[in-house]
Amino acid sequence: MDKLTSYLEQFEEFLAKESFDPKYKNLYDPVDYTLSNAGKRLRPLVVMMACEAYSGQTQTALPAAKAIELFHNFTLLHDDVMDDAPLRRGKDSVYRKFGLNSAILSGDVMLILSYDCIKDYDPPLYKWIMQVINENAIKVCEGQQLDIDFETREDVSIQEYLLMIELKTAVLFGGALKIGALIGGASKEQSQHLYEFGKNVGIAFQMQDDILDTYGDNPKVGKQKGGDILQCKKTYLYLKTMDLLEGEEKMSFQSLYDSDEQNKVSKVIEVFDRVVIKEYTEQVKQAYLDLAWSHLDACGLHENQKALFVDFGNFLLKREY
Amino acid sequence: MDKLTSYLEQFEEFLAKESFDPKYKNLYDPVDYTLSNAGKRLRPLVVMMACEAYSGQTQTALPAAKAIELFHNFTLLHDDVMDDAPLRRGKDSVYRKFGLNSAILSGDVMLILSYDCIKDYDPPLYKWIMQVINENAIKVCEGQQLDIDFETREDVSIQEYLLMIELKTAVLFGGALKIGALIGGASKEQSQHLYEFGKNVGIAFQMQDDILDTYGDNPKVGKQKGGDILQCKKTYLYLKTMDLLEGEEKMSFQSLYDSDEQNKVSKVIEVFDRVVIKEYTEQVKQAYLDLAWSHLDACGLHENQKALFVDFGNFLLKREY
Repeated sequence: MDKLTSYLEQFEEFLAKESFDPKYKNLYDPVDYTLSNAGKRLRPLVVMMACEAYSGQTQTALPAAKAIELFHNFTLLHDDVMDDAPLRRGKDSVYRKFGLNSAILSGDVMLILSYDCIKDYDPPLYKWIMQVINENAIKVCEGQQLDIDFETREDVSIQEYLLMIELKTAVLFGGALKIGALIGGASKEQSQHLYEFGKNVGIAFQMQDDILDTYGDNPKVGKQKGGDILQCKKTYLYLKTMDLLEGEEKMSFQSLYDSDEQNKVSKVIEVFDRVVIKEYTEQVKQAYLDLAWSHLDACGLHENQKALFVDFGNFLLKREY
Repeated sequence: MDKLTSYLEQFEEFLAKESFDPKYKNLYDPVDYTLSNAGKRLRPLVVMMACEAYSGQTQTALPAAKAIELFHNFTLLHDDVMDDAPLRRGKDSVYRKFGLNSAILSGDVMLILSYDCIKDYDPPLYKWIMQVINENAIKVCEGQQLDIDFETREDVSIQEYLLMIELKTAVLFGGALKIGALIGGASKEQSQHLYEFGKNVGIAFQMQDDILDTYGDNPKVGKQKGGDILQCKKTYLYLKTMDLLEGEEKMSFQSLYDSDEQNKVSKVIEVFDRVVIKEYTEQVKQAYLDLAWSHLDACGLHENQKALFVDFGNFLLKREY
């Protein structure tokens, strides 16, 4: 993973180059706050990885990597308002720290800046990149809407849940890889396989995230422990548990999950553990990962180029925070 | 203005073509609601006008006209949250009707759709259009931030106010004209003059809007009468009145304006009338309009092509609602 460390350094250096007009301090301070409270930078790193796999260099991928990071952070600013989330990456969310209007408006400008920062690519490449961003940006909004809808629906199927996480989370991983590949000179077909690889890793990653929200080590996650349970989120863990339970047990679990009773989190986890939900979810996660590997095999890359993606996928999916 | 009526029909027909996936009903219903509660469609009409002036047809401008309308409506959805506005064009705002999350998320998707709907232009033209949208979209956010900042600042200058309305409102008019001109085949220089024309008309238009918020005929405006006064907005009317008043009169006007006392609107208007603020504002508005005409003269258009812009400018600036 040494290569990733060097990518990360290169990306942070690129990111640090820009500074905003202090006249609009209240607009851009939340942007700086968000970008400096670095997450794992997974999405920009995969843009760079994909570019290097096809072209042997990462330099030309940097503006697009920044675009993807800005886009991802725009979604976080707005999601935190919609989810009423107090924390993000262990710090106050922008919504909490700067207020509602800042979370909306600074989020908006981050989305626009994400489109703006790819302006130096040649027109044909620029248009390809824009279309990948746009198609997937629309999907991300659709996924977020489904996520909101599910909060008040009692009839969510596992299939619908999987569509939701595909749209809300996974397509952006796919899009990031596709853009990196296109910048690196991959064919449309190769870049599409890399998209599918990323999408399936993304679904697995989200299942991991669901597991960690309940079973993870809180300080490292930087979010509220058991947040999904407290917010009655229909996660894979919940939906599959509902599938496995029957009769009265199912009904009492459902009413527990919908309640705000004391010690709700630990009581829900007790039921989760009884149906071995963590292991179930790990298995499904593995199935998506296997599908991802098969797309990676079709990307036209040599074994040593693929190795980094394999390492990276394994790294992501074995993290415990 | 018969030509404008035919543009409008053409635009509405184009707009009606698209329908959204019912699976994401809660995401797209607010979009449909917003687009069907038609405003004056000023921005898409000027895209079409500018295109026709240089190319004799409006057909190729339609996707860009739609992009500008979507962009403008995205800003309204988010502005209504930030301003806590109950009404928009005489109906419930999206924020009021569908709630906070819908106003944010459906607004986001409208912004993304605005970028998406220009995807059929050739790469070089596509990139030009995108850059005009982006540059001005950033300015619109900066203008909105200044507008918010001004609410809690007591030292706003008239110059700062003019910058704010230029950014928040006027540049989008300019951008709309520039995009239409570029699609119609205008040179970069011609399209830039048309941008300046639109920007200056836009500033005049916003001054008109400020006048109408206080002096307009409420049902036609479709907004709360005296909304700016109730929200203690630092409009041109307020700032210039503060400039004209002195001593105790100035202090008592300021404390009235910042208050929420009974009959505040009519009391403020009494002071406005005493300093003849409506006429002052009309004069400044006219100065911007004169600057606009001089840029129009430099656009390389024949008199008969310019006539429509002149008519349109006069139409806008003489409206009483």
